[in-house]
Amino acid sequence: MSVEANLKELGIDIPTPVAPVANYLPFIVTGNLVSVSGQIPMQDGKLAFEGKVGDTVSEEDACAAAKLCGLNIIAQLKAATNGDLNRVKRIVKLGGFVNCVDGFGNQPKVINAASDLMVAVFGDKGRHSRSAVGTNALPLNVPVEIDALVEIE
Amino acid sequence: MSVEANLKELGIDIPTPVAPVANYLPFIVTGNLVSVSGQIPMQDGKLAFEGKVGDTVSEEDACAAAKLCGLNIIAQLKAATNGDLNRVKRIVKLGGFVNCVDGFGNQPKVINAASDLMVAVFGDKGRHSRSAVGTNALPLNVPVEIDALVEIE
Amino acid sequence: MSVEANLKELGIDIPTPVAPVANYLPFIVTGNLVSVSGQIPMQDGKLAFEGKVGDTVSEEDACAAAKLCGLNIIAQLKAATNGDLNRVKRIVKLGGFVNCVDGFGNQPKVINAASDLMVAVFGDKGRHSRSAVGTNALPLNVPVEIDALVEIE
Repeated sequence: MSVEANLKELGIDIPTPVAPVANYLPFIVTGNLVSVSGQIPMQDGKLAFEGKVGDTVSEEDACAAAKLCGLNIIAQLKAATNGDLNRVKRIVKLGGFVNCVDGFGNQPKVINAASDLMVAVFGDKGRHSRSAVGTNALPLNVPVEIDALVEIE
Repeated sequence: MSVEANLKELGIDIPTPVAPVANYLPFIVTGNLVSVSGQIPMQDGKLAFEGKVGDTVSEEDACAAAKLCGLNIIAQLKAATNGDLNRVKRIVKLGGFVNCVDGFGNQPKVINAASDLMVAVFGDKGRHSRSAVGTNALPLNVPVEIDALVEIE
Repeated sequence: MSVEANLKELGIDIPTPVAPVANYLPFIVTGNLVSVSGQIPMQDGKLAFEGKVGDTVSEEDACAAAKLCGLNIIAQLKAATNGDLNRVKRIVKLGGFVNCVDGFGNQPKVINAASDLMVAVFGDKGRHSRSAVGTNALPLNVPVEIDALVEIE
Protein backbone atom coordinates (compact mmCIF):
# COMPACT_ATOMS: atom_id res chain seq x y z
CA MET A 1 0.00 0.00 0.00
CA SER A 2 1.26 3.50 -0.76
CA VAL A 3 2.11 5.74 2.16
CA GLU A 4 -0.61 8.21 1.09
CA ALA A 5 -3.26 5.47 1.02
CA ASN A 6 -2.05 4.34 4.42
CA LEU A 7 -2.26 7.89 5.80
CA LYS A 8 -5.82 8.14 4.48
CA GLU A 9 -6.78 4.87 6.14
CA LEU A 10 -5.19 6.04 9.40
CA GLY A 11 -7.06 9.35 9.13
CA ILE A 12 -3.81 11.34 9.34
CA ASP A 13 -3.48 14.69 7.55
CA ILE A 14 0.13 15.71 6.99
CA PRO A 15 0.39 19.37 8.05
CA THR A 16 2.18 22.19 6.26
CA PRO A 17 5.90 21.97 7.14
CA VAL A 18 6.80 24.20 10.08
CA ALA A 19 9.12 27.10 9.18
CA PRO A 20 12.41 27.21 11.11
CA VAL A 21 12.39 29.46 14.19
CA ALA A 22 15.91 30.77 13.40
CA ASN A 23 18.63 30.87 10.71
CA TYR A 24 18.63 27.23 9.59
CA LEU A 25 16.86 25.06 7.04
CA PRO A 26 14.15 22.55 8.00
CA PHE A 27 16.06 19.74 6.27
CA ILE A 28 19.18 19.05 4.22
CA VAL A 29 19.57 16.27 1.67
CA THR A 30 23.10 14.84 1.36
CA GLY A 31 23.45 11.83 -0.95
CA ASN A 32 20.46 9.63 -0.13
CA LEU A 33 20.22 10.86 3.46
CA VAL A 34 17.91 13.56 4.78
CA SER A 35 18.82 15.34 8.02
CA VAL A 36 15.62 16.83 9.47
CA SER A 37 16.07 19.72 11.91
CA GLY A 38 14.72 19.38 15.44
CA GLN A 39 10.93 19.58 15.24
CA ILE A 40 8.82 21.01 18.03
CA PRO A 41 5.10 20.58 18.81
CA MET A 42 3.78 23.33 16.51
CA GLN A 43 0.25 22.96 15.19
CA ASP A 44 -1.47 25.36 12.80
CA GLY A 45 1.30 27.89 13.35
CA LYS A 46 1.07 27.84 17.13
CA LEU A 47 2.74 25.93 19.96
CA ALA A 48 0.35 23.19 21.04
CA PHE A 49 2.29 22.28 24.19
CA GLU A 50 4.53 24.24 26.50
CA GLY A 51 6.29 23.49 29.78
CA LYS A 52 8.20 20.78 31.58
CA VAL A 53 7.18 17.13 31.92
CA GLY A 54 6.64 16.15 35.55
CA ASP A 55 5.88 19.77 36.41
CA THR A 56 3.20 21.58 34.33
CA VAL A 57 3.05 18.93 31.55
CA SER A 58 1.60 15.45 32.13
CA GLU A 59 3.16 12.35 30.63
CA GLU A 60 0.04 11.99 28.48
CA ASP A 61 0.44 15.50 27.05
CA ALA A 62 4.16 14.86 26.52
CA CYS A 63 3.24 11.84 24.38
CA ALA A 64 0.82 13.99 22.36
CA ALA A 65 3.60 16.56 21.91
CA ALA A 66 6.03 13.86 20.75
CA LYS A 67 3.47 12.57 18.25
CA LEU A 68 3.09 16.11 16.91
CA CYS A 69 6.88 16.39 16.54
CA GLY A 70 6.74 13.13 14.57
CA LEU A 71 3.97 14.50 12.35
CA ASN A 72 6.08 17.60 11.70
CA ILE A 73 9.05 15.37 10.78
CA ILE A 74 6.85 13.58 8.23
CA ALA A 75 5.74 16.97 6.87
CA GLN A 76 9.40 17.87 6.28
CA LEU A 77 10.02 14.48 4.65
CA LYS A 78 7.12 15.12 2.30
CA ALA A 79 8.77 18.38 1.25
CA ALA A 80 12.20 16.67 1.00
CA THR A 81 10.78 14.02 -1.34
CA ASN A 82 8.86 16.52 -3.48
CA GLY A 83 5.61 15.20 -2.13
CA ASP A 84 6.27 11.49 -2.67
CA LEU A 85 6.56 9.81 0.74
CA ASN A 86 6.96 6.43 -0.99
CA ARG A 87 10.55 7.54 -1.58
CA VAL A 88 11.23 7.17 2.16
CA LYS A 89 13.35 4.02 2.25
CA ARG A 90 14.16 3.93 5.96
CA ILE A 91 13.79 6.09 9.04
CA VAL A 92 17.41 5.68 10.20
CA LYS A 93 17.35 7.50 13.53
CA LEU A 94 15.19 9.66 15.77
CA GLY A 95 16.89 11.88 18.35
CA GLY A 96 14.44 12.77 21.12
CA PHE A 97 14.84 15.38 23.83
CA VAL A 98 12.32 15.62 26.68
CA ASN A 99 12.19 18.80 28.79
CA CYS A 100 11.57 17.26 32.22
CA VAL A 101 12.14 17.49 35.94
CA ASP A 102 15.13 15.82 37.56
CA GLY A 103 14.57 12.13 38.14
CA PHE A 104 12.02 11.70 35.34
CA GLY A 105 12.92 8.44 33.59
CA ASN A 106 10.08 7.80 31.14
CA GLN A 107 11.65 9.50 28.09
CA PRO A 108 11.42 6.20 26.15
CA LYS A 109 7.65 6.08 26.69
CA VAL A 110 7.25 9.73 25.64
CA ILE A 111 9.34 9.41 22.47
CA ASN A 112 7.51 6.17 21.64
CA ALA A 113 4.55 8.28 20.55
CA ALA A 114 6.68 9.51 17.64
CA SER A 115 8.21 6.07 17.05
CA ASP A 116 4.80 4.41 16.93
CA LEU A 117 3.67 7.00 14.39
CA MET A 118 6.64 6.26 12.12
CA VAL A 119 5.88 2.53 12.18
CA ALA A 120 2.13 3.12 11.62
CA VAL A 121 2.81 5.38 8.63
CA PHE A 122 5.83 3.72 6.98
CA GLY A 123 5.49 0.11 8.18
CA ASP A 124 8.80 -1.75 8.50
CA LYS A 125 10.56 1.16 6.75
CA GLY A 126 9.53 3.28 9.72
CA ARG A 127 11.39 1.12 12.26
CA HIS A 128 14.45 3.06 13.41
CA SER A 129 17.35 3.44 15.80
CA ARG A 130 16.88 6.05 18.48
CA SER A 131 18.23 8.06 21.34
CA ALA A 132 15.95 9.53 23.98
CA VAL A 133 17.29 11.76 26.71
CA GLY A 134 16.03 14.31 29.21
CA THR A 135 16.95 17.96 29.37
CA ASN A 136 16.24 20.85 31.75
CA ALA A 137 15.26 23.33 29.00
CA LEU A 138 14.17 23.43 25.35
CA PRO A 139 13.56 26.19 22.78
CA LEU A 140 10.41 28.25 23.47
CA ASN A 141 9.94 26.09 26.60
CA VAL A 142 8.47 23.18 24.59
CA PRO A 143 8.24 19.79 26.33
CA VAL A 144 9.67 17.75 23.42
CA GLU A 145 12.02 18.22 20.45
CA ILE A 146 12.84 15.44 17.96
CA ASP A 147 15.21 15.42 14.98
CA ALA A 148 15.66 12.69 12.39
CA LEU A 149 18.01 11.06 9.91
CA VAL A 150 16.22 9.37 7.01
CA GLU A 151 17.29 7.37 3.95
CA ILE A 152 15.38 8.15 0.76
CA GLU A 153 15.48 6.81 -2.80
CA MET B 1 45.37 -9.19 14.99
CA SER B 2 41.68 -9.97 14.64
CA VAL B 3 39.26 -8.15 16.91
CA GLU B 4 38.18 -11.45 18.47
CA ALA B 5 41.79 -12.40 19.29
CA ASN B 6 42.27 -8.95 20.73
CA LEU B 7 39.13 -9.27 22.87
CA LYS B 8 40.41 -12.60 24.16
CA GLU B 9 43.77 -11.08 25.06
CA LEU B 10 42.01 -8.19 26.80
CA GLY B 11 39.81 -10.66 28.69
CA ILE B 12 36.64 -9.00 27.40
CA ASP B 13 33.47 -11.02 26.83
CA ILE B 14 31.03 -9.33 24.49
CA PRO B 15 27.60 -9.59 26.13
CA THR B 16 24.30 -10.50 24.52
CA PRO B 17 22.94 -7.37 22.80
CA VAL B 18 20.50 -5.48 25.04
CA ALA B 19 16.91 -5.47 23.77
CA PRO B 20 15.42 -2.01 23.20
CA VAL B 21 13.35 -0.64 26.10
CA ALA B 22 10.70 0.76 23.72
CA ASN B 23 9.47 0.72 20.08
CA TYR B 24 12.77 1.12 18.25
CA LEU B 25 15.51 -1.12 16.85
CA PRO B 26 18.93 -1.48 18.51
CA PHE B 27 20.68 -0.49 15.27
CA ILE B 28 20.00 0.42 11.65
CA VAL B 29 22.37 -0.18 8.74
CA THR B 30 22.18 2.40 5.94
CA GLY B 31 24.76 2.01 3.19
CA ASN B 32 28.02 1.28 5.01
CA LEU B 33 26.97 3.17 8.14
CA VAL B 34 25.49 1.67 11.29
CA SER B 35 23.48 3.91 13.61
CA VAL B 36 23.47 2.30 17.08
CA SER B 37 20.64 3.34 19.42
CA GLY B 38 21.50 4.95 22.74
CA GLN B 39 22.91 2.22 24.99
CA ILE B 40 22.49 2.25 28.76
CA PRO B 41 24.45 0.42 31.49
CA MET B 42 22.52 -2.86 31.39
CA GLN B 43 24.37 -6.00 32.48
CA ASP B 44 22.92 -9.52 32.45
CA GLY B 45 19.45 -8.10 31.85
CA LYS B 46 19.57 -5.68 34.78
CA LEU B 47 20.59 -2.04 35.29
CA ALA B 48 24.08 -2.05 36.79
CA PHE B 49 24.05 1.67 37.66
CA GLU B 50 21.31 4.11 38.53
CA GLY B 51 21.24 7.73 39.66
CA LYS B 52 22.87 11.07 39.05
CA VAL B 53 26.62 11.77 38.89
CA GLY B 54 27.70 14.18 41.62
CA ASP B 55 24.74 13.11 43.73
CA THR B 56 24.25 9.37 44.37
CA VAL B 57 26.72 8.21 41.68
CA SER B 58 30.49 8.72 42.01
CA GLU B 59 32.65 9.71 39.07
CA GLU B 60 34.31 6.30 39.30
CA ASP B 61 30.98 4.50 38.99
CA ALA B 62 29.99 6.83 36.14
CA CYS B 63 33.11 5.71 34.29
CA ALA B 64 32.22 2.06 34.88
CA ALA B 65 28.71 2.81 33.58
CA ALA B 66 30.14 4.48 30.46
CA LYS B 67 32.40 1.48 29.83
CA LEU B 68 29.36 -0.78 30.07
CA CYS B 69 27.51 1.40 27.54
CA GLY B 70 30.54 1.00 25.26
CA LEU B 71 30.48 -2.76 25.72
CA ASN B 72 26.78 -2.79 24.81
CA ILE B 73 27.55 -0.73 21.69
CA ILE B 74 30.12 -3.35 20.64
CA ALA B 75 27.54 -6.08 21.29
CA GLN B 76 25.17 -4.32 18.87
CA LEU B 77 27.97 -3.95 16.32
CA LYS B 78 28.66 -7.67 16.55
CA ALA B 79 25.00 -8.31 15.68
CA ALA B 80 25.12 -5.65 12.91
CA THR B 81 28.14 -7.35 11.31
CA ASN B 82 26.69 -10.87 11.62
CA GLY B 83 29.26 -11.70 14.24
CA ASP B 84 32.33 -10.46 12.38
CA LEU B 85 33.71 -7.43 14.25
CA ASN B 86 36.62 -7.27 11.78
CA ARG B 87 34.09 -5.62 9.44
CA VAL B 88 34.13 -2.53 11.68
CA LYS B 89 36.08 -0.05 9.56
CA ARG B 90 35.79 3.00 11.77
CA ILE B 91 33.96 4.17 14.88
CA VAL B 92 32.80 7.49 13.38
CA LYS B 93 31.16 9.13 16.37
CA LEU B 94 30.10 8.53 19.96
CA GLY B 95 27.36 10.71 21.43
CA GLY B 96 27.57 10.68 25.23
CA PHE B 97 25.00 11.94 27.73
CA VAL B 98 25.84 12.11 31.44
CA ASN B 99 23.00 12.47 33.97
CA CYS B 100 24.63 14.86 36.44
CA VAL B 101 24.16 17.68 38.91
CA ASP B 102 24.40 21.30 37.78
CA GLY B 103 27.98 22.47 37.51
CA PHE B 104 29.48 19.02 36.90
CA GLY B 105 32.05 19.45 34.14
CA ASN B 106 33.85 16.11 33.90
CA GLN B 107 31.68 14.55 31.19
CA PRO B 108 34.78 14.13 28.96
CA LYS B 109 36.48 12.01 31.64
CA VAL B 110 33.35 9.89 32.14
CA ILE B 111 32.76 9.24 28.44
CA ASN B 112 36.47 8.48 28.04
CA ALA B 113 35.82 5.11 29.65
CA ALA B 114 33.84 4.18 26.54
CA SER B 115 36.30 5.87 24.19
CA ASP B 116 39.25 4.05 25.74
CA LEU B 117 37.39 0.76 25.30
CA MET B 118 36.83 1.45 21.57
CA VAL B 119 40.53 2.15 21.05
CA ALA B 120 41.57 -0.90 23.10
CA VAL B 121 39.25 -3.19 21.13
CA PHE B 122 39.51 -1.79 17.58
CA GLY B 123 42.91 -0.05 17.64
CA ASP B 124 43.18 2.97 15.33
CA LYS B 125 39.82 2.04 13.78
CA GLY B 126 38.32 2.68 17.19
CA ARG B 127 39.47 6.31 17.31
CA HIS B 128 36.40 8.51 16.82
CA SER B 129 34.82 11.94 16.90
CA ARG B 130 32.65 12.62 19.90
CA SER B 131 30.24 14.83 21.73
CA ALA B 132 29.85 14.62 25.50
CA VAL B 133 27.23 16.65 27.31
CA GLY B 134 25.45 16.72 30.64
CA THR B 135 21.74 16.29 31.24
CA ASN B 136 19.41 16.51 34.22
CA ALA B 137 17.61 13.23 33.51
CA LEU B 138 17.99 10.01 31.51
CA PRO B 139 15.77 6.98 30.80
CA LEU B 140 15.23 4.71 33.81
CA ASN B 141 17.36 7.19 35.79
CA VAL B 142 20.62 5.76 34.40
CA PRO B 143 23.79 7.87 34.85
CA VAL B 144 25.07 7.48 31.27
CA GLU B 145 23.66 6.90 27.77
CA ILE B 146 25.85 6.63 24.65
CA ASP B 147 24.88 6.21 20.99
CA ALA B 148 27.20 5.60 18.03
CA LEU B 149 27.68 6.01 14.30
CA VAL B 150 29.98 3.38 12.79
CA GLU B 151 31.35 2.65 9.32
CA ILE B 152 31.48 -1.03 8.36
CA GLU B 153 32.69 -2.91 5.31
CA MET C 1 34.50 34.03 -4.51
CA SER C 2 36.77 31.58 -2.72
CA VAL C 3 36.10 30.93 0.97
CA GLU C 4 39.55 32.30 1.85
CA ALA C 5 38.89 35.56 -0.03
CA ASN C 6 35.53 35.76 1.71
CA LEU C 7 37.13 35.23 5.13
CA LYS C 8 39.62 38.00 4.36
CA GLU C 9 36.80 40.36 3.38
CA LEU C 10 34.92 39.46 6.56
CA GLY C 11 38.08 40.04 8.60
CA ILE C 12 37.93 36.55 10.06
CA ASP C 13 41.10 34.68 11.03
CA ILE C 14 40.61 30.93 11.28
CA PRO C 15 42.29 29.85 14.51
CA THR C 16 44.51 26.84 15.10
CA PRO C 17 42.25 23.79 15.57
CA VAL C 18 41.55 23.09 19.24
CA ALA C 19 43.06 19.84 20.53
CA PRO C 20 40.55 17.35 22.00
CA VAL C 21 40.17 17.51 25.80
CA ALA C 22 40.04 13.71 26.07
CA ASN C 23 40.60 10.43 24.15
CA TYR C 24 38.87 11.28 20.87
CA LEU C 25 39.74 12.86 17.52
CA PRO C 26 38.61 16.36 16.54
CA PHE C 27 37.00 15.03 13.35
CA ILE C 28 36.49 11.84 11.35
CA VAL C 29 36.04 11.64 7.60
CA THR C 30 33.80 8.82 6.37
CA GLY C 31 33.09 8.80 2.65
CA ASN C 32 32.35 12.42 1.78
CA LEU C 33 31.07 13.26 5.25
CA VAL C 34 33.04 14.88 8.08
CA SER C 35 31.85 14.41 11.64
CA VAL C 36 33.29 17.25 13.75
CA SER C 37 33.53 16.61 17.51
CA GLY C 38 31.69 18.93 19.89
CA GLN C 39 33.55 22.25 19.90
CA ILE C 40 33.67 24.50 22.94
CA PRO C 41 34.48 28.23 23.24
CA MET C 42 38.27 27.91 23.41
CA GLN C 43 40.34 30.85 22.20
CA ASP C 44 44.15 30.97 22.09
CA GLY C 45 44.32 27.82 24.19
CA LYS C 46 42.05 29.13 26.95
CA LEU C 47 38.34 28.99 27.72
CA ALA C 48 36.86 32.34 26.68
CA PHE C 49 33.51 31.73 28.38
CA GLU C 50 32.43 29.73 31.39
CA GLY C 51 29.18 29.31 33.28
CA LYS C 52 25.45 28.93 32.77
CA VAL C 53 23.24 31.10 30.55
CA GLY C 54 20.58 32.92 32.57
CA ASP C 55 22.79 32.72 35.65
CA THR C 56 26.40 33.99 35.36
CA VAL C 57 26.42 34.18 31.54
CA SER C 58 24.35 36.74 29.60
CA GLU C 59 22.56 35.89 26.40
CA GLU C 60 24.94 38.22 24.58
CA ASP C 61 28.00 36.36 25.90
CA ALA C 62 26.32 33.05 25.06
CA CYS C 63 26.03 34.23 21.45
CA ALA C 64 29.71 35.18 21.42
CA ALA C 65 30.54 31.73 22.82
CA ALA C 66 28.43 30.06 20.12
CA LYS C 67 30.18 32.06 17.41
CA LEU C 68 33.52 30.93 18.83
CA CYS C 69 32.34 27.29 18.72
CA GLY C 70 31.44 27.90 15.07
CA LEU C 71 34.87 29.33 14.37
CA ASN C 72 36.46 26.28 15.98
CA ILE C 73 34.29 24.03 13.79
CA ILE C 74 35.60 25.86 10.69
CA ALA C 75 39.15 25.42 11.99
CA GLN C 76 38.58 21.65 12.15
CA LEU C 77 37.07 21.70 8.66
CA LYS C 78 40.16 23.46 7.36
CA ALA C 79 42.27 20.64 8.79
CA ALA C 80 39.84 18.01 7.43
CA THR C 81 40.10 19.48 3.91
CA ASN C 82 43.90 19.81 4.03
CA GLY C 83 43.56 23.57 4.15
CA ASP C 84 41.14 23.97 1.25
CA LEU C 85 37.81 25.21 2.62
CA ASN C 86 36.44 25.42 -0.93
CA ARG C 87 36.03 21.65 -0.65
CA VAL C 88 33.21 22.21 1.85
CA LYS C 89 30.15 21.31 -0.21
CA ARG C 90 27.49 21.63 2.45
CA ILE C 91 27.18 22.16 6.19
CA VAL C 92 24.67 19.34 6.74
CA LYS C 93 23.86 19.74 10.42
CA LEU C 94 24.82 21.65 13.55
CA GLY C 95 23.99 20.14 16.94
CA GLY C 96 23.92 22.87 19.58
CA PHE C 97 23.83 22.43 23.36
CA VAL C 98 23.30 25.44 25.63
CA ASN C 99 24.16 25.15 29.35
CA CYS C 100 21.29 27.16 30.84
CA VAL C 101 18.93 27.62 33.74
CA ASP C 102 15.55 25.89 33.77
CA GLY C 103 12.98 27.71 31.70
CA PHE C 104 15.48 29.39 29.36
CA GLY C 105 14.01 29.09 25.87
CA ASN C 106 16.29 31.19 23.64
CA GLN C 107 18.63 28.38 22.55
CA PRO C 108 17.73 29.07 18.89
CA LYS C 109 18.90 32.68 19.21
CA VAL C 110 22.15 31.60 20.91
CA ILE C 111 23.01 28.92 18.36
CA ASN C 112 22.14 31.36 15.57
CA ALA C 113 25.46 33.08 16.20
CA ALA C 114 27.17 29.95 14.88
CA SER C 115 24.61 29.47 12.10
CA ASP C 116 25.00 33.06 10.92
CA LEU C 117 28.77 32.55 10.80
CA MET C 118 28.41 29.45 8.60
CA VAL C 119 26.22 31.34 6.13
CA ALA C 120 28.54 34.37 6.15
CA VAL C 121 31.59 32.21 5.48
CA PHE C 122 30.24 29.54 3.11
CA GLY C 123 27.24 31.30 1.54
CA ASP C 124 24.39 28.99 0.52
CA LYS C 125 26.66 25.99 1.18
CA GLY C 126 26.67 27.11 4.81
CA ARG C 127 22.90 26.79 5.21
CA HIS C 128 22.20 23.75 7.35
CA SER C 129 19.76 21.66 9.34
CA ARG C 130 20.05 22.02 13.09
CA SER C 131 19.04 20.97 16.54
CA ALA C 132 19.37 23.31 19.50
CA VAL C 133 18.62 22.15 23.02
CA GLY C 134 19.29 23.19 26.58
CA THR C 135 21.25 21.26 29.17
CA ASN C 136 22.00 21.66 32.88
CA ALA C 137 25.76 21.01 32.54
CA LEU C 138 28.53 20.92 29.93
CA PRO C 139 32.21 19.91 29.91
CA LEU C 140 34.49 22.31 31.83
CA ASN C 141 31.32 24.29 32.66
CA VAL C 142 31.25 25.97 29.23
CA PRO C 143 28.00 27.72 28.23
CA VAL C 144 27.83 26.27 24.68
CA GLU C 145 28.97 23.15 22.80
CA ILE C 146 28.31 22.58 19.09
CA ASP C 147 29.12 19.60 16.86
CA ALA C 148 28.72 19.34 13.09
CA LEU C 149 28.16 17.02 10.16
CA VAL C 150 29.58 18.35 6.90
CA GLU C 151 29.68 17.14 3.28
CA ILE C 152 32.98 17.74 1.46
CA GLU C 153 34.22 17.06 -2.06
